[in-house]
Amino acid sequence: MLCHTDYSEETLQALHTRLNPDKTVAIIDSNLRDGQRALLEPIFRVVPENRRLYLTGGEEVKSLGLVKEIALWLNRCRVTRHSLIYVVGGGSLLDFCGFVAAIYKRGVPIAYVPTTLMAMVDAAYGGKTAINTDDIKNLLGVFQEPNAILLDERFLTTLSDREILSGYAEVLKYALLEDDQFFAKVLTTDPLNNGMGLRELIDQCVTIKKRFVEADPYDLGIRQYLNLGHTVGHALEGFSHTLEPLRHPALRHGEAVMIGIIVELYISHKLLGFPLERMHQIVDFAKEFFSPYFFECKQYNDIINLMLQDKKNSGDDIAIIALRRIGEPMKINASRVQLRNAFDFYREVIGG
Amino acid sequence: MLCHTDYSEETLQALHTRLNPDKTVAIIDSNLRDGQRALLEPIFRVVPENRRLYLTGGEEVKSLGLVKEIALWLNRCRVTRHSLIYVVGGGSLLDFCGFVAAIYKRGVPIAYVPTTLMAMVDAAYGGKTAINTDDIKNLLGVFQEPNAILLDERFLTTLSDREILSGYAEVLKYALLEDDQFFAKVLTTDPLNNGMGLRELIDQCVTIKKRFVEADPYDLGIRQYLNLGHTVGHALEGFSHTLEPLRHPALRHGEAVMIGIIVELYISHKLLGFPLERMHQIVDFAKEFFSPYFFECKQYNDIINLMLQDKKNSGDDIAIIALRRIGEPMKINASRVQLRNAFDFYREVIGG
Repeated sequence: MLCHTDYSEETLQALHTRLNPDKTVAIIDSNLRDGQRALLEPIFRVVPENRRLYLTGGEEVKSLGLVKEIALWLNRCRVTRHSLIYVVGGGSLLDFCGFVAAIYKRGVPIAYVPTTLMAMVDAAYGGKTAINTDDIKNLLGVFQEPNAILLDERFLTTLSDREILSGYAEVLKYALLEDDQFFAKVLTTDPLNNGMGLRELIDQCVTIKKRFVEADPYDLGIRQYLNLGHTVGHALEGFSHTLEPLRHPALRHGEAVMIGIIVELYISHKLLGFPLERMHQIVDFAKEFFSPYFFECKQYNDIINLMLQDKKNSGDDIAIIALRRIGEPMKINASRVQLRNAFDFYREVIGG
Repeated sequence: MLCHTDYSEETLQALHTRLNPDKTVAIIDSNLRDGQRALLEPIFRVVPENRRLYLTGGEEVKSLGLVKEIALWLNRCRVTRHSLIYVVGGGSLLDFCGFVAAIYKRGVPIAYVPTTLMAMVDAAYGGKTAINTDDIKNLLGVFQEPNAILLDERFLTTLSDREILSGYAEVLKYALLEDDQFFAKVLTTDPLNNGMGLRELIDQCVTIKKRFVEADPYDLGIRQYLNLGHTVGHALEGFSHTLEPLRHPALRHGEAVMIGIIVELYISHKLLGFPLERMHQIVDFAKEFFSPYFFECKQYNDIINLMLQDKKNSGDDIAIIALRRIGEPMKINASRVQLRNAFDFYREVIGG
């Protein structure tokens, strides 16, 4: 597992000395193109203009069609297995480009420059790369660590509140997996205070993630605890993308995870006695920062069916990560009835 | 690196005991469907009929479009990371299915049952999986060993002479990398004598290949010697697929490698003094067993340009594997002029 380093002229130089690439290219989130020239300067100094590509991040980028287009672009740039790809963007762009780099000519070195809170605390670490196929999230992917992660929290100032909060749901997840102390710190930090205090939380999340990933790099055991909120979250995210977008805007990943946390902790409360007091703190936090998500009883089955396709499910059970209390995760099986009751709970307390 | 085992009820049982799959599926070359029921019986006993898929092998199968279709089929079969995929077919089908298995849900166990000589001596071993993109051979892929290789030379009786000879070009390549003794054995064995004597050659090729792959699994150093005949061969194979198929039938992989061996050894002769006597033995062998391939001076540049896209090329050189003598490979750079002269030589001596 790689340590992250800061994003500066010096760390880029050190990276080039280490890898000695025959060529560099950069794939950059197109939202950064115009306003963030100063932040992109270190990349621009090592990647010539004709080998920079701008792509719009977000789930839509993670498609097989774009894999082909980017592979052909890399080939036109004469990128070899001895080159270096920079990718500057959020979690989806890193997941996608990480996958392309892992399979292009059977693997090209890649350096991640995460620009969203979500990417900084979660997506950039652990080597999970992926694309979606039809409506099935992350159906194809590989485990492949990037060769470097270059972190600069100044990118956080480029984000909307909604993007910050989406990442903050992952920060909350790490706190729930860790201990009461970190949980209290996360609930008392204002995520929307211009990035103040976030770097410390980011570093703590990365430390926690590394601990799980090092113990179980291929996600066959305790790494699955990082999936807290994600069995339900992934399904809701996928579901939200199937609806008519003007009347039912799609959920961001972290927004879906926030709902997933509430649903899965409700089941944790019912089956494992997860404390009600903590449950209420989390619901209050969600009410303060996240819009309610509206869905109906008759849609429960569609959502549950999407869960059955989750990679973590072996056979036909719906496995979720539950908590006995903060810092004590375990994998349990939830029934359709338990999930339906937990959806009811979410809609009651959040008003969705 | 895996040892191969025979393809029998016992080895399949042992594999199931080792992996304990929650589900098995099989992807089978459709050419085997009708005539080879007896040979497929061991697979049929562990894979129910509704989880068997028939695909036509050959280069065409290695496409991104089919990656998607097969991934969705696996998903419909509810294949998980704890399942087991059997693939029964030739090199292209193994390369393709190996790639799909490596990226489906970030990796599912797979067992190869190679059915062609090419697959038995070469494709099944070493963990190279790949698909083509547009006309660029193996542009996307990963290194991923299968969990088992189940070998049964009875499948060789299902092959056409042309298929046997295509594989035999790879056998010749291994002999050229090994020593005069194995080379003499390869030239004095009749490849078309109903598989007689082939199992011994197959085992020797696999031993040689394993030695290179174990020393250099990611193909960054001496494993590239296995590329003898392939820089030119891959380019010619790709080139042959771009022509009008009725007047210019596409080359099989081994047929293209046979030409590549002659072209690259001619350059070896010119630059490194590879012995003329051996050169003539190889040309005589090629004349006895392979049809001449017709191409023209004005097509040389198209073929050479395809070589520049080869993964083994770092930057803009055209690297080929050359021999000082049998058993003494080295990587050298060839110029366009040297390649053109070597193409001329092939066309003169073979009559293409």
